[in-house]
Amino acid sequence: MRETLAEWRPAVDEAITDLVPREVDADYLEAYFGEPTYEYDPDGIQRALADPLWELLDRGGKRWRAVLFLVFIEGFGEDPERYLPYACIPEILHNGTIIVDDVEDEARKRRGEPALHHIYGRDVALNAGNAMYFLPLKVLTQNPAALPADRQLAAYEMLIAELNRTHLGQGMDICWHNERDPQITPDQYLEMCACKTGCLGRIVARLAAIVTGQPEAVERAVADYAELTAVAFQIGDDILDVENSLGRAGEFGKEFGNDVREGKKTLLVIHAIEKSSPEKAERLQEILAADSTTDEEVLEALSIIEEAGSIEYARERALGLAEQARAEIEDLEFDEETTRKLREFTMFVIERDV
Amino acid sequence: MRETLAEWRPAVDEAITDLVPREVDADYLEAYFGEPTYEYDPDGIQRALADPLWELLDRGGKRWRAVLFLVFIEGFGEDPERYLPYACIPEILHNGTIIVDDVEDEARKRRGEPALHHIYGRDVALNAGNAMYFLPLKVLTQNPAALPADRQLAAYEMLIAELNRTHLGQGMDICWHNERDPQITPDQYLEMCACKTGCLGRIVARLAAIVTGQPEAVERAVADYAELTAVAFQIGDDILDVENSLGRAGEFGKEFGNDVREGKKTLLVIHAIEKSSPEKAERLQEILAADSTTDEEVLEALSIIEEAGSIEYARERALGLAEQARAEIEDLEFDEETTRKLREFTMFVIERDV
Repeated sequence: MRETLAEWRPAVDEAITDLVPREVDADYLEAYFGEPTYEYDPDGIQRALADPLWELLDRGGKRWRAVLFLVFIEGFGEDPERYLPYACIPEILHNGTIIVDDVEDEARKRRGEPALHHIYGRDVALNAGNAMYFLPLKVLTQNPAALPADRQLAAYEMLIAELNRTHLGQGMDICWHNERDPQITPDQYLEMCACKTGCLGRIVARLAAIVTGQPEAVERAVADYAELTAVAFQIGDDILDVENSLGRAGEFGKEFGNDVREGKKTLLVIHAIEKSSPEKAERLQEILAADSTTDEEVLEALSIIEEAGSIEYARERALGLAEQARAEIEDLEFDEETTRKLREFTMFVIERDV
Repeated sequence: MRETLAEWRPAVDEAITDLVPREVDADYLEAYFGEPTYEYDPDGIQRALADPLWELLDRGGKRWRAVLFLVFIEGFGEDPERYLPYACIPEILHNGTIIVDDVEDEARKRRGEPALHHIYGRDVALNAGNAMYFLPLKVLTQNPAALPADRQLAAYEMLIAELNRTHLGQGMDICWHNERDPQITPDQYLEMCACKTGCLGRIVARLAAIVTGQPEAVERAVADYAELTAVAFQIGDDILDVENSLGRAGEFGKEFGNDVREGKKTLLVIHAIEKSSPEKAERLQEILAADSTTDEEVLEALSIIEEAGSIEYARERALGLAEQARAEIEDLEFDEETTRKLREFTMFVIERDV
């Protein structure tokens, strides 16, 4: 998978440049957004849109959403080159959510540098992030692969459905953060992940199925594969945060006990609260709810999670989901090469090797 | 127009309630957003979405975007009742932009009460505002008026195009705010208004034309009518701020010299900078760029604007645009009643009587 990622990345970035060039001018604006009624200000739009977008993209990212899309296209027996503009859709959407999430979380850093709202101001960053929700959807109207109208419509309907659920997931997550004692079941936690993280994965998979005209059952299977992989990824993220904080996972680049300090209600926390004694559960909730937390308190919370067996529980769930994801793929008639890549992908995702 | 607004408002609010009920439950979530993979948290989504949305809607607003849509539908000879869910699309979009704009501007108040991010927190408010960008678009997929597929697709393409331009307009506006001396032409200012404010008006008009299957020329004419009216409205807003601040326009409910304090580059400011002596133009820019501004400085800036004849200039432009808007309508074969309502609407909009 690593080679596939490296192989496609330049082409993906080139395709993104076709949608949002590094240097905006009036000709581009007219071609992409339509004739102005009066007169565009290319300088303003450069600073409001192109600069923030490329600032973030140039900081890295493996473009795995775009590449996964292209792997599917190839698996469906079509030429990935032809669908490169469509590969940019989930990639730009994803980067838009990053900018908006960072504003919502008041994040200081992103990919090792100041979060975008610290560079451009909250207003510019937020508007750029939101613009990135709509900008890539115009690819469907431009219709570079000359899709028939029914596929264009199906793609729009799919995107709107998934982007709706993305916001439900983010909404649940934020509300749980902000409350001391939300009553969340493990299934509700998994649903939050499926919505918040999974829907972007579903967009990757379903878009590939729709533009190449796959039967519904195939679209459903690849969507489930992508969603399951994304949920497994999210749980893996939560586990890593705890393990790293307990000094077990080596370098992970996150601050110590981040999730506990933020009061995140992860699957591990939900499990620990359920399985611990009432006193310990209460103490864990207290630490999570506190406005500021000492290192000792963070360690105390982490010990409660560890003692409840929540790390093993979460790892088993994540592995189970990755297993299910692979099973979705086995039933499809992909060539060996594609099946191998997709299977590998579920591993990489959990092992954070992408 | 006032009667038309009062007449339709309850039906519009009822239709919005069908899309986002005041009390969210699992059945609604499943029906509207699709089956969950695991289990939704209706309580979380209540607080993340339904509560903020209804908090804002219950504060007032005339729902004129929805009603204007219904006036068009009636003018096109169709039954407005049948298209009520579609009337909610621009209304919910508009309220979403209000929430997001208030976060971007760090606004304290909205409709006389605290801005939503001061009640729910920035994260919840922002996510709710963004959710309201996608939520109403699902109406097209639900297809309550049983539209043929080509009209569904045309509606999606139109919405994505206009929402893209909305973000260009907002981007230009923000960038100009943040810069001391942006070189803006009057045409670029009008374009910013056409994008930022006009596109929501265009959505109202074009959506009505598309769902009822009007010819392209009709869609273009009503879109231009709506855009011109919106631009006139925006300029009217800028004039009112200056006039009110100069103690001429009576009660307007805004704080004194708001636009000057914010450093807004309005059409009046652009004109004043162009027409004043270099010293006065420099002084005006200096005051606009200042981080904090005394009442005396605000009045000084306002005098420079007034002396340059910028109020008259802006009023003439606004009246000219409203005239153009009316001309777009005259050529269409609407019944007298509809033409009267639409003509009235351009007046009401400028006189702030809606």
